[in-house]
Amino acid sequence: MLILLRAGTPESAVADVTSRLRMLGLAVHRTDHENRVRIAAIGDGSPLDPDTLRQWPGVESVEKIPVPFKLVSRSFHPQNTVITVGRCAIGSDQLALMAGPCSVEGEEQVFRIAEAVARSGATVMRGGAFKPRTSPYSFQGLGEEGLKILRRAADAFGLAVVSEVMDTQQVALVARYADILQLGARNMQNFALLREVGHADQPVLLKRGLAATIEEWLMSAEHILSQGNSQVILCERGIRTFETYTRNTLDLNAIPVVKELSHLPVIVDPSHGTGIRNMVAPMARASIAAGADGLIIEVHHDPDHALSDGAQSLYPAQADAPGDGQHTIGYDQLVSQIRTIAAVLGRRI
Amino acid sequence: MLILLRAGTPESAVADVTSRLRMLGLAVHRTDHENRVRIAAIGDGSPLDPDTLRQWPGVESVEKIPVPFKLVSRSFHPQNTVITVGRCAIGSDQLALMAGPCSVEGEEQVFRIAEAVARSGATVMRGGAFKPRTSPYSFQGLGEEGLKILRRAADAFGLAVVSEVMDTQQVALVARYADILQLGARNMQNFALLREVGHADQPVLLKRGLAATIEEWLMSAEHILSQGNSQVILCERGIRTFETYTRNTLDLNAIPVVKELSHLPVIVDPSHGTGIRNMVAPMARASIAAGADGLIIEVHHDPDHALSDGAQSLYPAQADAPGDGQHTIGYDQLVSQIRTIAAVLGRRI
Amino acid sequence: MLILLRAGTPESAVADVTSRLRMLGLAVHRTDHENRVRIAAIGDGSPLDPDTLRQWPGVESVEKIPVPFKLVSRSFHPQNTVITVGRCAIGSDQLALMAGPCSVEGEEQVFRIAEAVARSGATVMRGGAFKPRTSPYSFQGLGEEGLKILRRAADAFGLAVVSEVMDTQQVALVARYADILQLGARNMQNFALLREVGHADQPVLLKRGLAATIEEWLMSAEHILSQGNSQVILCERGIRTFETYTRNTLDLNAIPVVKELSHLPVIVDPSHGTGIRNMVAPMARASIAAGADGLIIEVHHDPDHALSDGAQSLYPAQADAPGDGQHTIGYDQLVSQIRTIAAVLGRRI
Amino acid sequence: MLILLRAGTPESAVADVTSRLRMLGLAVHRTDHENRVRIAAIGDGSPLDPDTLRQWPGVESVEKIPVPFKLVSRSFHPQNTVITVGRCAIGSDQLALMAGPCSVEGEEQVFRIAEAVARSGATVMRGGAFKPRTSPYSFQGLGEEGLKILRRAADAFGLAVVSEVMDTQQVALVARYADILQLGARNMQNFALLREVGHADQPVLLKRGLAATIEEWLMSAEHILSQGNSQVILCERGIRTFETYTRNTLDLNAIPVVKELSHLPVIVDPSHGTGIRNMVAPMARASIAAGADGLIIEVHHDPDHALSDGAQSLYPAQADAPGDGQHTIGYDQLVSQIRTIAAVLGRRI
Repeated sequence: MLILLRAGTPESAVADVTSRLRMLGLAVHRTDHENRVRIAAIGDGSPLDPDTLRQWPGVESVEKIPVPFKLVSRSFHPQNTVITVGRCAIGSDQLALMAGPCSVEGEEQVFRIAEAVARSGATVMRGGAFKPRTSPYSFQGLGEEGLKILRRAADAFGLAVVSEVMDTQQVALVARYADILQLGARNMQNFALLREVGHADQPVLLKRGLAATIEEWLMSAEHILSQGNSQVILCERGIRTFETYTRNTLDLNAIPVVKELSHLPVIVDPSHGTGIRNMVAPMARASIAAGADGLIIEVHHDPDHALSDGAQSLYPAQADAPGDGQHTIGYDQLVSQIRTIAAVLGRRI
Repeated sequence: MLILLRAGTPESAVADVTSRLRMLGLAVHRTDHENRVRIAAIGDGSPLDPDTLRQWPGVESVEKIPVPFKLVSRSFHPQNTVITVGRCAIGSDQLALMAGPCSVEGEEQVFRIAEAVARSGATVMRGGAFKPRTSPYSFQGLGEEGLKILRRAADAFGLAVVSEVMDTQQVALVARYADILQLGARNMQNFALLREVGHADQPVLLKRGLAATIEEWLMSAEHILSQGNSQVILCERGIRTFETYTRNTLDLNAIPVVKELSHLPVIVDPSHGTGIRNMVAPMARASIAAGADGLIIEVHHDPDHALSDGAQSLYPAQADAPGDGQHTIGYDQLVSQIRTIAAVLGRRI
Repeated sequence: MLILLRAGTPESAVADVTSRLRMLGLAVHRTDHENRVRIAAIGDGSPLDPDTLRQWPGVESVEKIPVPFKLVSRSFHPQNTVITVGRCAIGSDQLALMAGPCSVEGEEQVFRIAEAVARSGATVMRGGAFKPRTSPYSFQGLGEEGLKILRRAADAFGLAVVSEVMDTQQVALVARYADILQLGARNMQNFALLREVGHADQPVLLKRGLAATIEEWLMSAEHILSQGNSQVILCERGIRTFETYTRNTLDLNAIPVVKELSHLPVIVDPSHGTGIRNMVAPMARASIAAGADGLIIEVHHDPDHALSDGAQSLYPAQADAPGDGQHTIGYDQLVSQIRTIAAVLGRRI
Repeated sequence: MLILLRAGTPESAVADVTSRLRMLGLAVHRTDHENRVRIAAIGDGSPLDPDTLRQWPGVESVEKIPVPFKLVSRSFHPQNTVITVGRCAIGSDQLALMAGPCSVEGEEQVFRIAEAVARSGATVMRGGAFKPRTSPYSFQGLGEEGLKILRRAADAFGLAVVSEVMDTQQVALVARYADILQLGARNMQNFALLREVGHADQPVLLKRGLAATIEEWLMSAEHILSQGNSQVILCERGIRTFETYTRNTLDLNAIPVVKELSHLPVIVDPSHGTGIRNMVAPMARASIAAGADGLIIEVHHDPDHALSDGAQSLYPAQADAPGDGQHTIGYDQLVSQIRTIAAVLGRRI
């Protein structure tokens, strides 16, 4: 139920409405928009008569939230959510540029990449310390040691840190080093983990599951918001279809859909979304043209020897690529193109 | 087998190679690139010794074409194919803008829309006279009468015409009125029809099937080229996935993939690809940013009363939309945005 | 609109209702069930007042048909449709066993296989004379010569013939030799072809498209029935999913769904559905256990040298397989297993 | 690497080979088959010369395991794995029949259902105490209290217990009450949880993820086996496709594929696989006909008032269903049908 209070309703009256709703056994969430207090009251479907509610002091209107995700919906929270991390205001006119290696492999690697992506314009450093791997025999990540390296490198170049957490028992550890907690596609419906990060202080980057509908993705965000953490960044990273040429099918249709249904920022991961280096730049440009709030891109100075996902990593700069980048594109050049397309939509880096 | 002849090989020697190959029972196709003649010799897998071939006069190199589509591949034909229709050179730096109603409904409708889209910058008029409909009880199109209207309206405003052909027995009729023969997604593997339009003089717009891999799509184009018609324009229009929010999942990943594998131009249909008016503009912008050669978009001045697909049609101009277009976007405004994004990629309208 | 007439309504009154409906511009279809005449009156959505209709002489009740396929639905036609072809009553308690090679390759091949499958219990011979092939360079079938061979072989062993028709211009030709006209998966929404076979005298075997929902499949059958041909046999043959281990994902869920929604018989093609010989028998058994009305299975005595689809063809008899069939199963052994499972469901061969 | 030792190799020589391999940094797993010891030696791809290995005492042959799942493959472990739980030997000729409510709702409910399914022939009781729910506002399960009820009811009727565990921190708790730990489809690639149950003493029921290929599913089982727990029961429960009539598309093709690739038992969940009561029986019969080792089915005596998934639950007995079960089927009747089909394949209940 969405309850809109009249402009100028005193805080005491707001508190009164709130506590009455809580006494009815409802979870109560508040947002303010255009000088009006908006209250979402969420229960388990028990009867609550809207006509009675409309009689309460201060109540202007009462309506049903027409979607299963409540706190995540634009109906409840009309304006865009902006999440500030380091130098970046994610969801604002400024695009969020996150970049870095797939896995943290060592100190030198991470510092070198951090320096390069910071110079190109990135504001957030990505890098996996705990890696979800299909095979138990593949490299599983450096763990806490990897997080320490990532933190030091990011600090050295003025970047924030995003890194993946794979289990409820890792949340506190990752939160000690990372500014943004990443939940991977395979954990999008790990409800225990969603609940746990719902109690964290950090923003959460929630990747879309490979077979998740947009509604299920938003419902997973709702799990986090319902626990009190409203700083969720959605991330499209490709869905699974019959097409096998690309690793996944990056679903850019999700961008305008999410922007219409929800107030949460949504970024795109064209590296995992395509799995092919030469497709990262076209799909990154397309993401921004479709209205995405940012990009998370894998960058590696020596992708042929990366411990994971080298084939989809960009070179940091055009000149780093074989043949001086004639046949591919560097992260620096991509950022230049993004800057111009962003301007067409009234946005900036 | 791809046979590259030496620079300066006289035409008589080329003819000699060609006729020798034909005598071996092979189909022979020729293209010229960087002063060299390139010959694709295609058989049914029977043995042809490359070492023997290399001894023939004029032969510089012999290699296998590593993909199942031969004439469609960049291996055979390295430069982009450019198809000139009316004022538009499809596949060149100039983007192909095709627009018009889903179905031809009547003279006034078509003229009104033709005038508007021509003014906005379109060069090709779309409109269905024969309509593939899931239900036998839905409007099936005006047939030849519709084609006549379309031709007159296009001529009045300097546009070329693209219209769908659904059966081998309709090809001659549609070819009398249309400049481009459209094959719909449901007929992408109608092999009798592919063969028939392979003998036509007009370019063919080949839509991707709902469940077609990129390779199958290119194989269907190969059917057309193998019959002698090399003017094929590919059109991505959405694939079928588990996501139900949109009518189809427009697969923009296909754009960079097709541009790498093939020399044929590829355009995008964001109207059928999404099925939702408010998603047409973001996905149209994204298509161009991803490198598409053009767009085919449904435009209708009165979409609420369209006989088909109104919900996905753009208004011709911003001012035509309800509320002066505050909540949606007109075709004219979209073309302006496209113009700026095109420039980022060194292209124009 | 479904109009149920009272028991004992004289034919003159039936004729009266029918002609009144036709004068209103409606298409009228009739079926008889439990001593009552049932009339489906189908228009283009124009207003027809049920209350007025209920006043007409003989009318017992009037209701809306709640699904988009009308003539195909069980609402209109409650009892199972039974289609008699040769010695087989398809849709009855008797299972329809169709078998034969993928392509007709020659006289000796077809006679040999026909003899074997007839002995095992098949009543319908399959075999392609016109082959839909992804590549224009693959074997395209023997055409009319193939149909003649097929007819002779089937006649010699008391079998009926099913063979594919790919284009409107082939219908008359194929109908001259085949008892059942097969429409392939890629032509399931070739609406011109659906309309054409809707005017044929022969039953139609309509395969499900690779990306067709069950509703779309039934709508394609509706196209045929709406033209007057009510003898349609549906055939599930695998849909396209993300799974790549099998050629397609045979969707046995479709069997109970179709049996509930429609009165038409539905059979299964486990050969194309899986593409793997060792999976044909388990999925054939499962099809019958799920309630299918029959099976169409590829059988070849020398699958390693088949011109198409050898890898999915069964050997005619157990003893024909390498190693005396220890590692695979022959068509004869499969039919024995089917016979026992059929009995569990009160059916027979 | 798969190392086959000679028949009659003394245990001391086996121990010698094993410790040598361990010293090379390899994980070593052993199985015995036809009087021969088979050793899987698994590393991270570092070079290990097969020719050198073949010189070691007792070594008969050395080969590469040709699939990415090693311990799970039939190459390593040729005979079927049989897992004994209570009165049931899962993977043997005896089919594993698991049944019970979706969620544990209360003492009376669970006892009543337990009694009924035990009488029909089930040997394992299912019931969720921790429920993965798409919405945070839905019923989340009774937790430990639910597990206690489940244990008491199962003990009262001689049944084993299977129940879901959703997080690493729940494993010890669920293991206290359940005989089999269930991992849900959404956690199939929750690698932390896979690792944790890999250290448990109980067998694990591993459901296939909605978008998981068969290879990925087997790789997830490999995660468990690689930690030392070799008692894994695979469970097909439907994949996500474009078809929307059913909740999921139950993929019975997976049964023969898994039986060929792996030695692990595989059962089917037709309740979640279809989501529709009337489809449970046909798909259950088809599963057994396709070669499945068992079934897990939702049964509820009052499905209309179930707290979750009532629409897909069977009535315990035919007579419990509305209209005396004329329009549906009870669990008891289904088990009778299964018994007869099982006999066709030489199996029993």
